[in-house]
Amino acid sequence: MKNLTREHFLALDQTDPLVAYREQFQLPAGMIYLDGNSLGPLPKATIGRLANVAQQEWGEWLITSWNKAGWMDMPTRLGDKIGQLIGAAAGQVIVADSTSINVYKTLAAALAMNPDKHVILSTHDNFPTDLYMAQGLIDQLGGKHSLKLVDGEAIAEHLNDDVAVLTLTHVNYKTGRKYDMAGLTAKAHDCGALTMWDLAHSAGALTVQLDACMVDFAVGCGYKYLNGGPGAPAFLYVANRHQANFSQPLSGWLGHANPFAFDWKYEPAEGIARYMCGTPPVLSMSALECGVDMMIAADIDAIREKSLHLTDLFIAAVEQLCEDHPLRLATPRDRNIRGSQVSFHHPEGYAIMQALIANQVVGDFRAPDIIRFGFTPLYTRYTDIWDAAVILKHILDTKAWDRPEWKQRKKVT
Amino acid sequence: MKNLTREHFLALDQTDPLVAYREQFQLPAGMIYLDGNSLGPLPKATIGRLANVAQQEWGEWLITSWNKAGWMDMPTRLGDKIGQLIGAAAGQVIVADSTSINVYKTLAAALAMNPDKHVILSTHDNFPTDLYMAQGLIDQLGGKHSLKLVDGEAIAEHLNDDVAVLTLTHVNYKTGRKYDMAGLTAKAHDCGALTMWDLAHSAGALTVQLDACMVDFAVGCGYKYLNGGPGAPAFLYVANRHQANFSQPLSGWLGHANPFAFDWKYEPAEGIARYMCGTPPVLSMSALECGVDMMIAADIDAIREKSLHLTDLFIAAVEQLCEDHPLRLATPRDRNIRGSQVSFHHPEGYAIMQALIANQVVGDFRAPDIIRFGFTPLYTRYTDIWDAAVILKHILDTKAWDRPEWKQRKKVT
Repeated sequence: MKNLTREHFLALDQTDPLVAYREQFQLPAGMIYLDGNSLGPLPKATIGRLANVAQQEWGEWLITSWNKAGWMDMPTRLGDKIGQLIGAAAGQVIVADSTSINVYKTLAAALAMNPDKHVILSTHDNFPTDLYMAQGLIDQLGGKHSLKLVDGEAIAEHLNDDVAVLTLTHVNYKTGRKYDMAGLTAKAHDCGALTMWDLAHSAGALTVQLDACMVDFAVGCGYKYLNGGPGAPAFLYVANRHQANFSQPLSGWLGHANPFAFDWKYEPAEGIARYMCGTPPVLSMSALECGVDMMIAADIDAIREKSLHLTDLFIAAVEQLCEDHPLRLATPRDRNIRGSQVSFHHPEGYAIMQALIANQVVGDFRAPDIIRFGFTPLYTRYTDIWDAAVILKHILDTKAWDRPEWKQRKKVT
Repeated sequence: MKNLTREHFLALDQTDPLVAYREQFQLPAGMIYLDGNSLGPLPKATIGRLANVAQQEWGEWLITSWNKAGWMDMPTRLGDKIGQLIGAAAGQVIVADSTSINVYKTLAAALAMNPDKHVILSTHDNFPTDLYMAQGLIDQLGGKHSLKLVDGEAIAEHLNDDVAVLTLTHVNYKTGRKYDMAGLTAKAHDCGALTMWDLAHSAGALTVQLDACMVDFAVGCGYKYLNGGPGAPAFLYVANRHQANFSQPLSGWLGHANPFAFDWKYEPAEGIARYMCGTPPVLSMSALECGVDMMIAADIDAIREKSLHLTDLFIAAVEQLCEDHPLRLATPRDRNIRGSQVSFHHPEGYAIMQALIANQVVGDFRAPDIIRFGFTPLYTRYTDIWDAAVILKHILDTKAWDRPEWKQRKKVT
């Protein structure tokens, strides 16, 4: 792919089978939004849904909505919908709490199911909250477990009889590197280890087959590719074969076998409902349902195909246009091990991303030196990525990033 | 108080200093809503706020809203506002997760701070999720702790040197009995125990003085008297004097000292921010802020005064009108130990509550035989409670509750 021009990208837009979905989002005029892997944009349907949940279900029906509007069943109903996006048959996914909390629940269950082994195996560059929750859990359990962090390329060789649970983020948040879920899960099982996969950068972005891969536990995020809104509730998965005997350390009343008996003694609910804890956040969960419904309507295979095309082309365009600059690809060039993002290292990455944002190209920065671009086929056009590459070239050529106020890093997510 | 008539209640409405607040809620026409202690109704301001958060902050500003719209600071900003309602100086309250999760965090911290003692003391009839979370925590910690449940009247005599933490719900959810926060906290401290108070039925309902009572930890609910919406985020409190050394078992990335450094190793944030875990649920939290803002604008002492008047009068009206029926008051007759609800035992409680709801008087049922009515001075009129008592009398006199479909209990919260 050399000598790419804007016409090439324009032609691809004209034959894009997903083109109609862009109209279903409210996107700021003139902005090229390549940060849907941090916060997905607002589906237009969500506006009406939120108004209805507030005014009709909450305002008019009040507590009767727990039954009448299906609030009480939302965690499992919405979980089953998400299950369709991640290759999970019904009854194995629930929406509850945050990704962090769900990491804690699932790792705690996995350790309890594997009491003779004491290592949680993960990678140095796993998303920090997964590692932090593991550290908190290990402390709670009295320190007899340990967290072993290895290089992503070396996971297989560290899978041995000591490992209780292998936990990985399926697609690395910084680099976009995708791990071999089927292969690593099988290897873990060969050693007697369980697996817990974090799908934060996978669900809604690419094909995931939890059941077929024989995954044990999984968690994921509602506010990235699922477009569920800022801080949307998270989800988790427990394979059917474990549902008779997994434990729930955060044993709240809505995970009780009979919460409205108000008994003093905890008795876990059957199946995945055990992973409920407190009262579900109805407003946030309703918004998430709108994002999930749209994802289900679209064809995930078509999404993946366009995503790979977008990431291939963005890499090619940036490398063609910016070849004189010290950009170094952080994302796998091999599309088979790539998620739905493209990241580059650059020593001035933070300032460059600020300049891009000032020019309406919104990606984000990840320490120490990564500029990160997420590709979301439902609303990202081929011409958007060409235009983004041209703007990046201009910023690099003119050193537009070299401003004192951009030397100071601010909080972003 | 004998020979009450509707005129008496009408006169009280005409001089009620809080009368203007009722207009700030969207209340279903014709309904007498006495269930604000289960789910507070919709503040009208919340409708516009939710639309703005979705369309402007999320839809237009997208990720920049983490700074620009103050999303990142919401947990502490809103925490400080709630602090004003519960007698907590700034920097001690945060909004995060659910009440259940916050029970776990605070009990875990209390046990870690009191390593030589191994009893969690509470009451048999504490709200079940508080007890369930304690049981889950004890299991996680390997079983060296125990949960001791005693009768509410006998708490003081069970406070001894074995007790690591005393945990009580300030106002009992079934009976409305209010415990002596200052006295029991002082007695707990005398024994070397810490305290964790659940304010689910106190915050926004009556005067609470956490700092003055020397409370150690507290948690509370956003969707009851704070009118934050179904499943609203919860809050928690840690006294300043403990903030240098409390632990956070659910050590998520937003409780890290520097979350955006993305370091692999957990380092707790200073102070109350440590109790953050995952990404805050912005939509739900924005709705909660509307409810809290209204509560702050009203005078909590005026709220308490009207609440006591409402509960005194409801007891009197029901006892006057329904004296021939087997209703037995479950709530303290002594207003000094009463929260903001009135509960009665009746063998047919479930069916009676269904009949009341069918007649637009909405309270709720709590097993095994309690009908429960919550009193919320910002929107409950004196005439409402007279009318509710008259309707209750009619249902009892005519046995309108005696229908087969009301023998079958359904899920309610």
